[in-house]
Amino acid sequence: MHLLSAKWLWTGHQLVEDAGLLVSAEGTVAAVGTLAEVEAAAAGASDETPLAREDLGETLLLPGLVNAHSHAFQRTFRGRVQWRQAGRDDSFWTWRQAMYSAANDLDPDAFEAVSRRCFTEMVRSGVTHVGEFHYVHHDRAGQPYSDPDELARRVIRAARDVGLRVTLLRVAYGASGLSRAPGGVPLLPEQRRFATRSPDEALAAVARLRALDDPLVSVGLAPHSVRAVPRAWLPELAAFDGPIHVHVAEQPAEVAACKATWGCGPLALLAEAGLVDARFTAVHLTFPEPEDPALLRRAGAGVCACPTTEMDLGDGFLPLALRDGVPLSLGSDSHARIDLLGEARALEWHARALAGRRNVMTPPGDGAQPRHALAGRLVNAATLAGSVALGGRGDGLRAGAPADLCALDLDRPAAEGVPPLEAAVFSGSPEWVSAVWVQGRRVWTRP
Amino acid sequence: MHLLSAKWLWTGHQLVEDAGLLVSAEGTVAAVGTLAEVEAAAAGASDETPLAREDLGETLLLPGLVNAHSHAFQRTFRGRVQWRQAGRDDSFWTWRQAMYSAANDLDPDAFEAVSRRCFTEMVRSGVTHVGEFHYVHHDRAGQPYSDPDELARRVIRAARDVGLRVTLLRVAYGASGLSRAPGGVPLLPEQRRFATRSPDEALAAVARLRALDDPLVSVGLAPHSVRAVPRAWLPELAAFDGPIHVHVAEQPAEVAACKATWGCGPLALLAEAGLVDARFTAVHLTFPEPEDPALLRRAGAGVCACPTTEMDLGDGFLPLALRDGVPLSLGSDSHARIDLLGEARALEWHARALAGRRNVMTPPGDGAQPRHALAGRLVNAATLAGSVALGGRGDGLRAGAPADLCALDLDRPAAEGVPPLEAAVFSGSPEWVSAVWVQGRRVWTRP
Repeated sequence: MHLLSAKWLWTGHQLVEDAGLLVSAEGTVAAVGTLAEVEAAAAGASDETPLAREDLGETLLLPGLVNAHSHAFQRTFRGRVQWRQAGRDDSFWTWRQAMYSAANDLDPDAFEAVSRRCFTEMVRSGVTHVGEFHYVHHDRAGQPYSDPDELARRVIRAARDVGLRVTLLRVAYGASGLSRAPGGVPLLPEQRRFATRSPDEALAAVARLRALDDPLVSVGLAPHSVRAVPRAWLPELAAFDGPIHVHVAEQPAEVAACKATWGCGPLALLAEAGLVDARFTAVHLTFPEPEDPALLRRAGAGVCACPTTEMDLGDGFLPLALRDGVPLSLGSDSHARIDLLGEARALEWHARALAGRRNVMTPPGDGAQPRHALAGRLVNAATLAGSVALGGRGDGLRAGAPADLCALDLDRPAAEGVPPLEAAVFSGSPEWVSAVWVQGRRVWTRP
Repeated sequence: MHLLSAKWLWTGHQLVEDAGLLVSAEGTVAAVGTLAEVEAAAAGASDETPLAREDLGETLLLPGLVNAHSHAFQRTFRGRVQWRQAGRDDSFWTWRQAMYSAANDLDPDAFEAVSRRCFTEMVRSGVTHVGEFHYVHHDRAGQPYSDPDELARRVIRAARDVGLRVTLLRVAYGASGLSRAPGGVPLLPEQRRFATRSPDEALAAVARLRALDDPLVSVGLAPHSVRAVPRAWLPELAAFDGPIHVHVAEQPAEVAACKATWGCGPLALLAEAGLVDARFTAVHLTFPEPEDPALLRRAGAGVCACPTTEMDLGDGFLPLALRDGVPLSLGSDSHARIDLLGEARALEWHARALAGRRNVMTPPGDGAQPRHALAGRLVNAATLAGSVALGGRGDGLRAGAPADLCALDLDRPAAEGVPPLEAAVFSGSPEWVSAVWVQGRRVWTRP
């Protein structure tokens, strides 16, 4: 058993001052509360192994940050698409061409290396669990590797090597655009590494990956988007019994094409096929139809917002209508930056600028809620909500839950005199993260 | 003489690899270029004092960051206004009440202490020059201190104590709202510490402060806003011969009141009084009139955007129309965060989300411009443009210019393989700043 003490701890439900957290030998939370409460629990435990203690001082302990939407390999061209060629307008679509080039340039070793680079930065910024939306499957000629899951295994290995919990969201990608033709628009040559020939192929890959013997690896299914998955595949993919993530309505052109082809928006098309329920996460949803927020609320489905990428790629801001009553998780997506608490504050700050008022995402309450209700909700978007989106329970730091933890060092001028959760959410940087634990094991400590 | 070498250096005009910068005994740039060029210049210098050398390694040297709009005392309530009271909508105006409480709670010692706290964080985030928009002048009863410039001197002292170059923008504040009555709407009791009784009082204060014997202190004039300065005062204030900063069109209510009272928007009102020329900086201008961008361009006047504060307070986003041809400087204003390069990337990222395309603020060019043209423009908003707004030349790092420098340590996973300016602008945090020099003197080094 291992007893951590810290000046502050946010469980996901409650802010505790002079806090303690007892980690079991299995890497779960054995007890959490004030240090006095946790010491009493430790004394009463029957475990006879000696108790290791560590005092983290002027630190805020949080549930580990969850990065619910990542394309790790996109780290390879960070900073190299931040200019414009003369005489050309840049957009999501020109960026996509640059991304295809990068994707088609990586052999398995390079793919694993850039994934490890990305995940290393992720761990050091407090992330304990990543949802890797993985769509590069084949060799550069579009032929399956001798192990058809070669690249999926490489990306999983990269994540596990640096200590991350990982949910591999295996992508199904069968078309290059919407069409009433049975298979949609045929794939472009530059999409051949992503190709999935049938829904069964995707489901079989998911089944193989699920057999991996590592409790910190789980698997989900990712029909890429209504652009890239023929409509006929959707009901078959809905048979999957785990987390389902889809890029939805990231660009107006996608919504327009979907309505022109099928007479409804992308979310309604996915819902009609049986995909949209509590397992479901709509990634982006920057351009929802008016009925989409209610559809998600009825279904208990969530949205994963990636504010930095949605700005960087010229998508837009998550609309105000999606801020209420819809579970919101967060991702760093294309990894222009990796800063999940930064994504959380962007959610609220963009909402303020859009609404023309302040403290927009404060949860509805009866006046009895604590002052940190807003900061708590934003932290939870970067933690508990991401865990739920990736198939977890999202319990936060409760007895029995995995001890995935992120420590923020608040002993610095920027946090002096600032309430701890508000300091973490509104004033922090990834460099404030001082230590990270996954399933009770310390995977990183700032030197 | 002191020779700094660094892997990269951005002069404000050019990116130099394997760079050198020679600092004169007076704290100016004696030479800048590749290390070989600068060594040759140093060898040829007649100075006989020994040359001190320092190699900064995997570092990007930038002109010092300039924070062109600061209210240092607002640091006192950081994090304490990031929630919403039950049953109340929060807005800029409710925030303002909280700000008034804070302003009315500080005696001179406390005012100086919170200013020093704020400026300490500023220096550590790479800022070398602050424009302090200073509007708390009197004691809590609204009576002038025995030295009427007591608080201005305190805030100047706080800045100089931590090594900052400071431009004190002395505020004129005479009314609590727009009215055709000669003095505008009378001040509220909670505004009594800000009171200026006449334009002459403000101009006399500016003249006294200009007499301070410190080359790193300069003075500007800040008619607070068209809300707080009676129209009749404006032509008299226009007589001032230094930088003039005014809060302009931060909230729709201000614009509506101005149009209802005077039949034109705030910028036009200021222009009609002779204030809007090359000395002039419009702070915010979140809600410009359609003719305002052209007015600014004709006048050679600038805009100081404060994207973080403009989100935090529920103002809005700087409109796209102000991104072209108008000099843009940046400020951390209310200091929810102090991250000037973060403000710079917010300018571009907000522009992308508003425009629905990428690389919006890339300067117009002929195709021969370097790839880092966009990152360079954004860095310059956080450096050279701020210097110009505060009455400086904005030369950047050229021979003869003050050696105000900021070093960013790029030896970190987040910058690995990323072009240096793009890493600094799009991926950086204040914690990347490793050392800061003002007028050639090193004022901070990260431990």
